[in-house]
Amino acid sequence: MTNKNNTEKISELARRRGFFSQTAEPYGGVAGFYTFGPEGAELKRNIENLWRERFNKKEGHREIEAPTIMPEQVFEASGHLETFDDMIIECPQCSENHRADHLVEDNTNIDEAEAFSPEKIKKIIEDEELECPSCKHSLAGIDVDDFNLMFKTEIGPGDSMPGYLRPETAQGIFVEFPRFKDYARNQLPFGITQIGKAYRNEISPRKAIVRVRELTQAELEHFIDPEEDRPQIEKVEDVEVTLYSANDQERSETEYKTIKIGEAVEENIIESEWVAYYLGIAQKWYKRIGLDMDRFRYRQHLKDERSHYATDCWDAEAEVDGDWIEITGFAYRGCYDLTKHQEHSGEDYTIFKEYEEPKKIEEKKINPDMGYLGPKYGNKTDKIIEKLSNLAENSEEVFENEEVTITVESEEINIPTDKIGFEVVETEKTGERIIPHVVEPSFGIDRLVYTVIEHAYNQDEIEGESRTYLSLDPEVAPTLVAVFPLMKKDGLDKKARELTTKLREHRFSVAYDDSGTIGKRYRRQDEIGTPYSVTVDHETLDDNSVTIRHRDSTEQVRVKIEELNELLNRLKSGEISFSDL
Amino acid sequence: MTNKNNTEKISELARRRGFFSQTAEPYGGVAGFYTFGPEGAELKRNIENLWRERFNKKEGHREIEAPTIMPEQVFEASGHLETFDDMIIECPQCSENHRADHLVEDNTNIDEAEAFSPEKIKKIIEDEELECPSCKHSLAGIDVDDFNLMFKTEIGPGDSMPGYLRPETAQGIFVEFPRFKDYARNQLPFGITQIGKAYRNEISPRKAIVRVRELTQAELEHFIDPEEDRPQIEKVEDVEVTLYSANDQERSETEYKTIKIGEAVEENIIESEWVAYYLGIAQKWYKRIGLDMDRFRYRQHLKDERSHYATDCWDAEAEVDGDWIEITGFAYRGCYDLTKHQEHSGEDYTIFKEYEEPKKIEEKKINPDMGYLGPKYGNKTDKIIEKLSNLAENSEEVFENEEVTITVESEEINIPTDKIGFEVVETEKTGERIIPHVVEPSFGIDRLVYTVIEHAYNQDEIEGESRTYLSLDPEVAPTLVAVFPLMKKDGLDKKARELTTKLREHRFSVAYDDSGTIGKRYRRQDEIGTPYSVTVDHETLDDNSVTIRHRDSTEQVRVKIEELNELLNRLKSGEISFSDL
Repeated sequence: MTNKNNTEKISELARRRGFFSQTAEPYGGVAGFYTFGPEGAELKRNIENLWRERFNKKEGHREIEAPTIMPEQVFEASGHLETFDDMIIECPQCSENHRADHLVEDNTNIDEAEAFSPEKIKKIIEDEELECPSCKHSLAGIDVDDFNLMFKTEIGPGDSMPGYLRPETAQGIFVEFPRFKDYARNQLPFGITQIGKAYRNEISPRKAIVRVRELTQAELEHFIDPEEDRPQIEKVEDVEVTLYSANDQERSETEYKTIKIGEAVEENIIESEWVAYYLGIAQKWYKRIGLDMDRFRYRQHLKDERSHYATDCWDAEAEVDGDWIEITGFAYRGCYDLTKHQEHSGEDYTIFKEYEEPKKIEEKKINPDMGYLGPKYGNKTDKIIEKLSNLAENSEEVFENEEVTITVESEEINIPTDKIGFEVVETEKTGERIIPHVVEPSFGIDRLVYTVIEHAYNQDEIEGESRTYLSLDPEVAPTLVAVFPLMKKDGLDKKARELTTKLREHRFSVAYDDSGTIGKRYRRQDEIGTPYSVTVDHETLDDNSVTIRHRDSTEQVRVKIEELNELLNRLKSGEISFSDL
Repeated sequence: MTNKNNTEKISELARRRGFFSQTAEPYGGVAGFYTFGPEGAELKRNIENLWRERFNKKEGHREIEAPTIMPEQVFEASGHLETFDDMIIECPQCSENHRADHLVEDNTNIDEAEAFSPEKIKKIIEDEELECPSCKHSLAGIDVDDFNLMFKTEIGPGDSMPGYLRPETAQGIFVEFPRFKDYARNQLPFGITQIGKAYRNEISPRKAIVRVRELTQAELEHFIDPEEDRPQIEKVEDVEVTLYSANDQERSETEYKTIKIGEAVEENIIESEWVAYYLGIAQKWYKRIGLDMDRFRYRQHLKDERSHYATDCWDAEAEVDGDWIEITGFAYRGCYDLTKHQEHSGEDYTIFKEYEEPKKIEEKKINPDMGYLGPKYGNKTDKIIEKLSNLAENSEEVFENEEVTITVESEEINIPTDKIGFEVVETEKTGERIIPHVVEPSFGIDRLVYTVIEHAYNQDEIEGESRTYLSLDPEVAPTLVAVFPLMKKDGLDKKARELTTKLREHRFSVAYDDSGTIGKRYRRQDEIGTPYSVTVDHETLDDNSVTIRHRDSTEQVRVKIEELNELLNRLKSGEISFSDL
């Protein structure tokens, strides 16, 4: 189903028109590293800013920025050091390394080989007689190993300490939780977000910027009290989503369910209300940035595909070039991460949860007569006291007798009850310490950039000639408007440059182009998805009017320069559309 | 002169109020790595966006995004692999590593020890009897070594290739120049900018976020034709700057010159017009983001402090905590970087510069009779032809004789002129290939963040109690406005929350706070530099009015809620000031 031609077409356009291209091409390039050119970087930044607006500002969350290099202890605690692996197989003939699970997925009808063990993958490779994709040598019998995907480095000189490039931005948030809870004045719920680089030393990077070694994530960690906090699910309950549940996948169902969020929660298809809330607001957001929602689904993780700590997990998936790719993961991570960091660091990762009213509790304890017990039992005394304390908490009835009998180191000991000092004290408890739970939507920005371009890729015919254009939304398009002088003389170029400067002062993204025919200039802008092109001609010098042309319809209308600023603002925000002009 | 107390005061406030703190504190922290909390990250982003607006958009440049990991060849070409070193000395007793030049600067009256050789530093340490700052053991006679500051990692599995975390964002632009010149359709000048992480494995990180191992740079590489392109110097010629020239430094002058940019160029104090242009626009920008321009200077690099390729180099320096720190470097890098990458990669880093009119040139060449030369001279023929070609180009008069005499491998050879076929052909040359020159302003964003905070740090007395506040400009302040309900009852909190949501929808950065007394809430906002605080009280419920309070003056006025949006916009842009209300 993969359409490799399409991937190639898009990569070619991306390279030629300044979206992205492989890094350090003059030196032969480096697999898995891409440089965003002017158009790509602007498109990416627009998507990041729309994310920030929706998932940070509008939700009242706060964004932080942690370093990309972190010390080893962080990843020891998070488990990445031990388990952030992919399965690798090395060809005995050509020494090429391959990702073993992908080899199986590409050459059999198995879909989710990632969830299998290395032994099982080895067995399948043997049974299916799979070959090295590079040199066609048989891979039967070759061991499948785990390969850790973290990039390692050394911090400091001399006895340096190991450091790792973070495999996800999330740990930079979790590890600092003690700081952030102070900042939030110990009040749950609160959300911390981060947009930044993450690194995965992929065995076989592929598909342009879809599977890369250096990527950008936008992650949101929403810290909640699982007993008290509920999302504002009513805001999204009528949002329709396309779901591909674990059950449907297991039944090999290929028709996806279209259902309202509210119903999906009621029918327990989506298990966590919090995950459902974020699926709802994300659905609207994907539409806003221009994804083709007919090539979009939410797929639930299969039981054995889930991280061991996640209780409910859904991926947003988009169809690009005939493949379904993951663009976001939504996970209910429970208290796993904070608990691990608390255990490994010894620091306090809890929140003190105050009760509405102090609770009266009975504390059962002993006040033993040490002057009696000490001399009599010597170094057994500690163990005796421990046993008696346990009895006080759990079997208070034994203190009703005159003597209490316990066994210490196989010896039966009788102690007079009045030497133990058992008592029940009534005290007040004002609250308790809890470790918050975490809801995490985790977006892959590079993949979103690719999907936005692929879903906007169009070809049609204009006056008998074929053209390529990206139908990008004015809010995400890297260039909003292009300004052309009809000719490079009669002062038209000067006028057009002045207009360019003026529009830039209004913070629009503006391209100026005076080379080649107008038709050629339109084609260039069509290919980078510029929604509007403005031409300065001789009439402009007379009456200060210009033509504005719409990318998709290629329609043109004449407008006054003094109206242009407001017009572009209203077109960009979607308040009006071009056909209203 | 260093005021360590001040550094500590600012670090403490930064940590407590969510600006920045050392990374992974629960694990003991990692020297040289800091995490920006909610307020710090927002402040940093505001500064980055104002930079982007001024140095990218307004100048018509384009921003790109390259990876932070780059292959070894890039840094072989750039020279970082060989020379990106600091001087290190290891204490023989406690094994602590120290930066040797800083040791000298901190303990002698030498200011710029970085420019000295390791041997000279060793000698000074011996002569001055300097000790290990950690254990006080003598360091006399201990070798001073070079330590490369790049973080190294390995890319890919198996026979992996070395990769380095970039020590500056600039190389990610230079290496891709062949792409960018195509994108710019071979027209000079054009500018490419990048804001992103850079890494320096500092020997002794210090002074909070001022000398860190992971930092953010904002760099602009302006590619120009040195013969044709001139900056719009007239735009900045009247800008007054404070200069500390190399000459003044050599004369130990401590009074800095305040002079207009135009005059400084005329008097050749600033050697490059391009550097002068950027000093001028940067001066205004520093003022805009809130630097105290009385604690600011441009310092010219001393001759031996300059990189070997830079012809003119100035640092913007700010005084913080009693020290002068570099916040920006302005360098005229010439054609150094592009030439190096062209040499190392074999790729074409030139621009074809078309002449306005084709030039007629005389080409002098030979058309030798190979049927004569070949059989006669065998494998010497190639050398003979080379020599004759040289003669044609440089000494055409020899072809006036009947025979031409040359010496090949110590043998004198006479060749009849008519077998050589010397001729002068007139051809047209339409242009030539040039390697552009580069002007580079390079900003250290973390240091700017620190400087902005330090220059905004104030203490005064309000009603007999001392308070601390940051007098941040509304354009850079992380939180623009705080909303308080006077009390958490009577619907005041509901009303205040509604107002918060409404203001957030207008894309303002808004804090909501309902805990503690109003006075306490004001103090919190003062400490993070929030310019305006709005209080919802019982009057609000009657007439929809609120009080708005100004941070610096603590004055309050009553305004209608429906006016608040426009009011805040005008206050933020500087169109009005609070005293106009």
